[in-house]
Amino acid sequence: MEDFHAPRRLLLGPGPSAVHARVLQAISTPLVGHLDPTFLNVMNDVQAGLRHLFATMNRFTIAVSGTGSAGMEAAVVNIVEPGDAVIVGVNGVFGTRLAAIVERCGGKAIQIEVAWGQIIEPNMIAERLLQSGPVKAVALVHAETSTGAWQPIEPVSAICRKHNILLIVDAVTSLGGIPVEVDQWGIDVCYSATQKCLSCPPGLAPLTLNERALSAVKNRRTPCQSWYLDLSLIADYWTEHNRAYHHTAPISMLYALREALRVIEEEGLPSRFARHRLNSRALLAGLMAIGLDPLPSPDCRLPTLLCVTVPASIDEGAVRSQLLERFGIEIGGGLGPLKGKVWRIGLMGESSTEANVLTLLNALEEIGIQHGWVSTPGIALQAAAHTYSVGR
Amino acid sequence: MEDFHAPRRLLLGPGPSAVHARVLQAISTPLVGHLDPTFLNVMNDVQAGLRHLFATMNRFTIAVSGTGSAGMEAAVVNIVEPGDAVIVGVNGVFGTRLAAIVERCGGKAIQIEVAWGQIIEPNMIAERLLQSGPVKAVALVHAETSTGAWQPIEPVSAICRKHNILLIVDAVTSLGGIPVEVDQWGIDVCYSATQKCLSCPPGLAPLTLNERALSAVKNRRTPCQSWYLDLSLIADYWTEHNRAYHHTAPISMLYALREALRVIEEEGLPSRFARHRLNSRALLAGLMAIGLDPLPSPDCRLPTLLCVTVPASIDEGAVRSQLLERFGIEIGGGLGPLKGKVWRIGLMGESSTEANVLTLLNALEEIGIQHGWVSTPGIALQAAAHTYSVGR
Repeated sequence: MEDFHAPRRLLLGPGPSAVHARVLQAISTPLVGHLDPTFLNVMNDVQAGLRHLFATMNRFTIAVSGTGSAGMEAAVVNIVEPGDAVIVGVNGVFGTRLAAIVERCGGKAIQIEVAWGQIIEPNMIAERLLQSGPVKAVALVHAETSTGAWQPIEPVSAICRKHNILLIVDAVTSLGGIPVEVDQWGIDVCYSATQKCLSCPPGLAPLTLNERALSAVKNRRTPCQSWYLDLSLIADYWTEHNRAYHHTAPISMLYALREALRVIEEEGLPSRFARHRLNSRALLAGLMAIGLDPLPSPDCRLPTLLCVTVPASIDEGAVRSQLLERFGIEIGGGLGPLKGKVWRIGLMGESSTEANVLTLLNALEEIGIQHGWVSTPGIALQAAAHTYSVGR
Repeated sequence: MEDFHAPRRLLLGPGPSAVHARVLQAISTPLVGHLDPTFLNVMNDVQAGLRHLFATMNRFTIAVSGTGSAGMEAAVVNIVEPGDAVIVGVNGVFGTRLAAIVERCGGKAIQIEVAWGQIIEPNMIAERLLQSGPVKAVALVHAETSTGAWQPIEPVSAICRKHNILLIVDAVTSLGGIPVEVDQWGIDVCYSATQKCLSCPPGLAPLTLNERALSAVKNRRTPCQSWYLDLSLIADYWTEHNRAYHHTAPISMLYALREALRVIEEEGLPSRFARHRLNSRALLAGLMAIGLDPLPSPDCRLPTLLCVTVPASIDEGAVRSQLLERFGIEIGGGLGPLKGKVWRIGLMGESSTEANVLTLLNALEEIGIQHGWVSTPGIALQAAAHTYSVGR
């Protein structure tokens, strides 16, 4: 095996996003033991930083030792028991995955399906609740990474409270990029991932549960099917005074997350959200100027992940290859029914900068001119520049 | 939050072990996407390195995106279905955990229990198989991290073949430190962890399955209860040509593992095993010279993890605190019934050096003299030095 030389990449896909140099420095810190008093302080800092991000006072706020999908699985398998019905909003890959995990723990997934790119209207949930028998929880994807759709959460929470059922929210592509107000919105279980708007390498899943959710975990009739993700056991390590060994924490990843949270804290969430909004608007203006229209409607477009439809006349795979090979830029293709039909462009965390927006638009223009689907040089860049000049 | 300054630690506990500077360098490499062609090559290299370590030709040889316990869970939940009986050797924390996971997937754990520190005699398994109904698998811990016991595997494999049942082996504290011969011994499912004898940070679980085990996975009557750890889905990303997205791989951790595998390859497995044996013998000679006797009997003592009983006259917790605070040395205490009664000293991977052995013995002597349980200065160091002079 030879030395590994990573090529230079501008990460503008659906994740991972660019990682700050300070975070790369932190991840290479020599290790201490996972029960070392120093490390327990690192965990405390991570918990405090995550509470700030989730806008919650929840004591149970941790980083699950796995990627975002492990966070999803932890959220579901701890709440859902065999026979439990869960209403799941299905409008993309991650809603589909939520429903699959509900079924794998013996639950019944009542799927509310809408076309990919659309959102689940809160009244659809209210209506389904009136038709169905007892329901334990509603599970929704706040930011659907496969479509770029921005799901409203707060109105659904009001419905859940009325029916006394739990609300589980996937905030993988939203946390740290757009507001996620766990306490104010009344979210009971919320999880995310580190490699999106937190700009930390993949490998941890932030997760928070409020007292209502913890009480459901505590009062289960059956043990959680997963030992690794059993939150009643993990709580002994993360949140109780005894700090009892459960499994060995991914120490280096937690060093990285701690530093990523510091970087976020220094910028401040309001500035960070404004930065994501502005860069997204500028990129969108540029993309639309060259005929790439967003899939979701204007009222539900995520600033963190833009999904644009690619005209059939463009060989989308060839363009992505050229972006990667010639310009070192990664963007994402479509998944499932959107395969070959859309591009997914992430402007998350450290990746969301004016320079990156202009670099990508310039590269797309170059390729488009070469292949004949862009006729006016500079048109995308000008549209973006206009947004920046107005936006400030 | 302030800058994090990690204290200097000599990691001689049950894991994590010391990480090579080259591995810390590799983990801080800027990221590429998890579907980037460059990254797929990293995965290929990791697979090749792991096959070498496991001494296997198994195509399905991967790193699970979680710590060692996730590897254990992946091994069990993919093989065991509701109603399946599994014989589990229980002689410490990790056998107990295996049995718990078998039960959590609706399996029946037939536990063969022996005292902690002892091994499961192969004939105990043969006898139990004659008494019990159909059994799907036998699960054993090769290197029991909670006791330092070294379980023979090959004779059990012969029994499994005779009865046509699968053999699942936990190689968390053995892989890379003592021989693990997956193909030659006929192990069907074998998993490990990165933070022990591989000297890589915790966060990945090497896992290998042979065709017999994969066929059991393929012919399940029910879907695997875990979506995150479902090997039939993960195979599409790791081992098939399509490299289909399942979950975002922990990219930085895989960079680290690749480099750790290179370091191992450069040393060579025979030299590495010899180094672990020699340092362990020297440490043991030193410890016995100051009255600390090993828990397991001479025929089943691991060189990677020494478990010594602490005389009741010594305040073991106070000594560990002094080691940590005064000397920056981490060793482990006992778990479960051994709590307060033993020390667990790891000499794994980069931590297994003559310098570390002498440093620890010197520190223990200093503390022992101060507290009156060592009377002859230099006695432990001399015993170790003698082993080194004879051993070479």
